[in-house]
Amino acid sequence: MQEKAVTPLSEDFSAWYNEVVVRAQLVEHGPVRGTMVIRPYGYQIWEAFHANLDARIKAAGHGNVAFPSLIPQSYLQREAEHVEGFAPELAVVTHAGGKELDEPLVVRPTSETVFGEYMSRWIESYRDLPLLLNQWANVVRWERRPRLFLRTTEFLWQEGHTAHVDEADAMRETMWALETYAAVAREMAAIPVVAGEKTPGERFAGAVRTYTVEGMMRDGRALQAGTSHYLGVNFAKAFEIQYQDETGALQHVHTTSWGMSTRMIGGVIMTHGDDKGLVLPPALAPYQVVIVPIGRNDAAEQTAAAARELANDLRAAGVRVHVDDNRPQLSPGFKFNDWEMRGVPIRLEIGPRDLAAGVVTLARRLPLENTPGKEQIPMQRAAELLPNVLAEFQAFLLTRAENFREEHTATVDSWDDFVPQVVLGWARALHCGRLSCEEHIKADTAATPRCIPADAPNESGRCVRCSQPSAYGQRVIFGRAY
Amino acid sequence: MQEKAVTPLSEDFSAWYNEVVVRAQLVEHGPVRGTMVIRPYGYQIWEAFHANLDARIKAAGHGNVAFPSLIPQSYLQREAEHVEGFAPELAVVTHAGGKELDEPLVVRPTSETVFGEYMSRWIESYRDLPLLLNQWANVVRWERRPRLFLRTTEFLWQEGHTAHVDEADAMRETMWALETYAAVAREMAAIPVVAGEKTPGERFAGAVRTYTVEGMMRDGRALQAGTSHYLGVNFAKAFEIQYQDETGALQHVHTTSWGMSTRMIGGVIMTHGDDKGLVLPPALAPYQVVIVPIGRNDAAEQTAAAARELANDLRAAGVRVHVDDNRPQLSPGFKFNDWEMRGVPIRLEIGPRDLAAGVVTLARRLPLENTPGKEQIPMQRAAELLPNVLAEFQAFLLTRAENFREEHTATVDSWDDFVPQVVLGWARALHCGRLSCEEHIKADTAATPRCIPADAPNESGRCVRCSQPSAYGQRVIFGRAY
Repeated sequence: MQEKAVTPLSEDFSAWYNEVVVRAQLVEHGPVRGTMVIRPYGYQIWEAFHANLDARIKAAGHGNVAFPSLIPQSYLQREAEHVEGFAPELAVVTHAGGKELDEPLVVRPTSETVFGEYMSRWIESYRDLPLLLNQWANVVRWERRPRLFLRTTEFLWQEGHTAHVDEADAMRETMWALETYAAVAREMAAIPVVAGEKTPGERFAGAVRTYTVEGMMRDGRALQAGTSHYLGVNFAKAFEIQYQDETGALQHVHTTSWGMSTRMIGGVIMTHGDDKGLVLPPALAPYQVVIVPIGRNDAAEQTAAAARELANDLRAAGVRVHVDDNRPQLSPGFKFNDWEMRGVPIRLEIGPRDLAAGVVTLARRLPLENTPGKEQIPMQRAAELLPNVLAEFQAFLLTRAENFREEHTATVDSWDDFVPQVVLGWARALHCGRLSCEEHIKADTAATPRCIPADAPNESGRCVRCSQPSAYGQRVIFGRAY
Repeated sequence: MQEKAVTPLSEDFSAWYNEVVVRAQLVEHGPVRGTMVIRPYGYQIWEAFHANLDARIKAAGHGNVAFPSLIPQSYLQREAEHVEGFAPELAVVTHAGGKELDEPLVVRPTSETVFGEYMSRWIESYRDLPLLLNQWANVVRWERRPRLFLRTTEFLWQEGHTAHVDEADAMRETMWALETYAAVAREMAAIPVVAGEKTPGERFAGAVRTYTVEGMMRDGRALQAGTSHYLGVNFAKAFEIQYQDETGALQHVHTTSWGMSTRMIGGVIMTHGDDKGLVLPPALAPYQVVIVPIGRNDAAEQTAAAARELANDLRAAGVRVHVDDNRPQLSPGFKFNDWEMRGVPIRLEIGPRDLAAGVVTLARRLPLENTPGKEQIPMQRAAELLPNVLAEFQAFLLTRAENFREEHTATVDSWDDFVPQVVLGWARALHCGRLSCEEHIKADTAATPRCIPADAPNESGRCVRCSQPSAYGQRVIFGRAY
């Protein structure tokens, strides 16, 4: 029994995060440094996310596949930038079946290379294009500074890999994936991400253009929540992926790749949590509603029976509900704190007096504007009211996060304004576009260019750091990042 | 364009299988020997299977989790029989992040050890039991004689891992998993498996009792399609998984594990296929119905439009349907053969005459008893009729497979009858239960004890091979196996 409260978020964000993910039974550290064990309460968040994103991927015509996790080392070496980017993070299988292998195998850090090899076998003519594939898989990247969900040596993700006749079609796909990620982040995770392009220095190893969705966490830092890459003909040339066009001429395909991962769970926690613990958006919450029956002896049996009946009504209305009726050793107060710490959006309490009056007491995890912390609703109408209560709560979290982001983002035009702004949150600034200047900014402030937002107005001037003419024709968002 | 027909099943079963799984675009050989790349048409079979089994696992109260794929080598060594069984099949990561690791990591061949380690942390009291966990994951076992789906170096599966207060509760769980596998095999894959216990020589490495569901393939061989293990306190002792009982005394938990894998897809192919190729049960078929519009010029557009409209009606009726309308370069005859080879249960043809008459031509992949090979049905009633047509086809496949199994199984009481019977199919025989006798039988006939069926009548006598007194009190099914 852990009665100790979590370290408040407002006191030490990092300690709060590390404590709350474990205390809420989302995840634990794995046996190998940097790995994680995702527990049922955390995995259900991933399943809700998976179901939603997978449906969107399929509706857009992609087919799911399963490639092996072990890739010959030589595959990675075929694309020069790709291997340079990933070599330091690889886990290598050198022995198998009791023998040393002739060629070492890497555990996939991502699968562009092996998809490239098979695309070259499957694609013959323009009739075979576009080839739209996706994979849900585990990947391994040896992380120096691991953090549960955010940066783990092994994580779960989906990786889309597609091939197209030309740049225009591949770019349409790249942007489709970006918009899909933005929609999933907003609608499921209630994270109001900013979508935009990465600067050249922040591109994926082997990409021509990289796009990202960036969310702001409650400490003002940015979290890259999904990326979409236009790979040009880089992998097509490395793996000889060619097609015959309508005239019979051989052409290289243009490829894309895009991924979103269990990191998103960390983003949910850091976007909505508070001093008491997690706050989960109803769309992803394993339990949208927890019912706590209250009472002793005979009353306990009666309120528990009423709770189970109400739970059945709520389930029939499509609500994910849990009844906390098998921990008689714990007090109601302990249970309330426990479910608040674990982020359950709505708690319903049924005590003997509620039962007598035909009502239940409804408590939201956070008070909405203009609603009381607790209110009583008629038991008979609970199943009718709750879907709407949940939808309101979901919308409230998104608005709250949007307001937080706007309050912590500022347009800055001088280095003196830039430096304190990236401590608080994000800075919209003009930048010269030189990698060396990006590196100076990072060394001085720990901030990096997060993205060039797609919807930013056209603007030019002087670089916020070095005063050289600005690049990109738009402002860049800078922030410190996870 | 591959016009060549597949090698007939009746001519060379093994060549037929190897050709058909690739030609039907289910799977390809991966880049590393023994690995596979599952393509969308194959992966959709896995997804249908996954959705059904996962729902049953959850309904019975299990929580899904995700453990890391890399396990410290020392974990496997804690259970002596377990490491002995798996050591020859392990893939070992010796280097990661650019360095040699202090302790090598094995890519999980199965996860009893790492679940054991975490169960010991999560379980304190009898109130924490039963602990019911499940994982959908990839596992790696270095296979000497790999075969696509059936025996691959890497495969996908689910692995259930549970902990209980005592043997009785753990045995209930073990039998629940066995019955669930039998139901999934019958209802989804239309494979009439026989469920029963493995003899001691065929037990899982580390188990006290192993149960299996065995299907008969169309060459008379057996395929182990899922196993469920009662592990006693073996892993509880190796990983110190203890709980305080109601009196306050420390007890070891009793654990189980159970798994079903992508091997099941191979079982579906070998249970139902024929000379023309695959025959897929509707419950697992990616496309339950394919509509082929026929006609030239204007007629082609009209029949294609009618096909798409019909497809929408069928989708609304819950049917998975595909319209073959984007391959104008192929003849209707080619398309018919193609979809037959790929195992689509029902083909609907719409030609100009059908359209004029307001009918569609329905062709089943296999003729049912008392139904013609092709028949015409009113277009308007197609969406109403097809769900039933599919259900009939599903039931027909199960009955056909059941009849095949019964025709190829015989009760034998002499070695002279045993030897030819295990060439044709399965033999029900009495056996002494000695491992050395099992090994003699295998050396002479390649047959192994598949299981002791749960529903076999009590019977005793003399061993079919050595004439010593029989063991088990029941007949054992012997057969050659995949």
